[in-house]
Amino acid sequence: MTDDSDAPAAPPERTVVQNAELALLLEVTGTPKPGNVDRAHEYDDLRFEHFVVGAVGARPGLRLAADGERLGRAFERAVAGMSRQSGGNTQFGALLALVPLVQAAATGDLTRERAGEIAAATTVDDAADFYRAFEHVSVAVDDPPDGLEPLDVRRGSGAVPALRERQLTLYDVMERSAEVDGIAREWTGEFERTFHAADRLLALDGSVADRAARVFLELLAAEQDTFVAIQHDRATAEEATERASAALEGDTDPWTLADEFVAEDVNPGTTADLTAAALFVALERGLDV
Amino acid sequence: MTDDSDAPAAPPERTVVQNAELALLLEVTGTPKPGNVDRAHEYDDLRFEHFVVGAVGARPGLRLAADGERLGRAFERAVAGMSRQSGGNTQFGALLALVPLVQAAATGDLTRERAGEIAAATTVDDAADFYRAFEHVSVAVDDPPDGLEPLDVRRGSGAVPALRERQLTLYDVMERSAEVDGIAREWTGEFERTFHAADRLLALDGSVADRAARVFLELLAAEQDTFVAIQHDRATAEEATERASAALEGDTDPWTLADEFVAEDVNPGTTADLTAAALFVALERGLDV
Repeated sequence: MTDDSDAPAAPPERTVVQNAELALLLEVTGTPKPGNVDRAHEYDDLRFEHFVVGAVGARPGLRLAADGERLGRAFERAVAGMSRQSGGNTQFGALLALVPLVQAAATGDLTRERAGEIAAATTVDDAADFYRAFEHVSVAVDDPPDGLEPLDVRRGSGAVPALRERQLTLYDVMERSAEVDGIAREWTGEFERTFHAADRLLALDGSVADRAARVFLELLAAEQDTFVAIQHDRATAEEATERASAALEGDTDPWTLADEFVAEDVNPGTTADLTAAALFVALERGLDV
Repeated sequence: MTDDSDAPAAPPERTVVQNAELALLLEVTGTPKPGNVDRAHEYDDLRFEHFVVGAVGARPGLRLAADGERLGRAFERAVAGMSRQSGGNTQFGALLALVPLVQAAATGDLTRERAGEIAAATTVDDAADFYRAFEHVSVAVDDPPDGLEPLDVRRGSGAVPALRERQLTLYDVMERSAEVDGIAREWTGEFERTFHAADRLLALDGSVADRAARVFLELLAAEQDTFVAIQHDRATAEEATERASAALEGDTDPWTLADEFVAEDVNPGTTADLTAAALFVALERGLDV
């Protein structure tokens, strides 16, 4: 018996799935993220705790993504698990951004190219799962363009026959949404903004929560939030971006902007989803907490 | 092909392990919990985000407990995983309280009697694991009584030979600590306060975060926090209990008490650990979030 035989084993490394769950939790921990639920901002019917339960509930679906399950299926199960809380939709967009990244990280190198390849390799079955996911929670979306009513995501699994008929993959569906949805644009653009924001998270100083809040503001100042555009209109989204720029440059206190956005019901949710995805990439690349 | 063939499967139920992790997260979400880190209170070197990372990191150890692994081993692995963040000890006591409860819930009915039986069935090997766990984080403890220096937990795995020589099980170790440690008292008293607090969590109205904060105050008002007694002394612990009573009765604002406790460095950590354990029991019994 050596001297070391009684010593404990080293602490385990965090797994890819743990990092994905942690990214969801750290996103909502960062404050202020003007207009969104965070550690210091919530609504009566959509509270911080709902995001915590959503993150823990999403885990089995994230596990499937890491295990190499079809992306659509992993996403649908993640959303189903996320939906088991009374707040409603907490992390639909964040999970959509995360699943290809999780699969890339768990099956090889987490690079933009590989994440893009994994997204591009999705099938019609994945698209069907994506539509099924809309049955678990109410997600704010615009009316589909003329002629595309059969593919309205609000039809849920009712749209699956139309998907099959047209042989649309999940990647095809994302391509058709890229103009109006910031997460779809990540799917079809090799997650450009996600990886850039991850670099920023790694480069900044301070607590991870503070960095997440800062990167949220940088993302919002750089590009219009597509959820705000759907929720209100393009002009409101453009104005939100300008006000985020002012907060970033110190002309407005971000806490004041947070109060204003809450009062005006301006919720840059897509930017929060991107922040969560960026946190995951940063954690995989060694972000210390 | 039936009409339902395209419909999604039902959302998955939360597992015992998910509920355990969630309990840790909801504990730190509840605010104000005077003197402790919570959603609205943190220190420069011990922040909310460290508790989030600790909860996610503890999961593999909690999984072992659910899978029927020896309790000591499950605990040591949970602490090892929890320790992978830069804040230090976040949930040592909470994990100690959780592992027998998780094992009871995962292997049969979660009752006081079964949790007590599982605690009582621990072995010398479990005690050795418990001592090893002290090597992962710095835990505040008192000096051991005269003659028990070989069993000082601060010796970590160095105390294992003494444990083996005296054939002390983990339950025996808990019995020896029950007078000075509130979690050890739960182990040897069939988790009386934990289950009572769980009943309170289920009976109260309002958000789960608010209920957790309220139950924390009720626990602190009812019994001295043993961590405060170790950190300061019995008189300070007694006074903290009296001040919690005053806050509970509306004579003091709990937010003011939180500011005072932070300023005085009074951290009722054992009471927070009990709150986490109670949240787990309540979640298993259907607490809705």
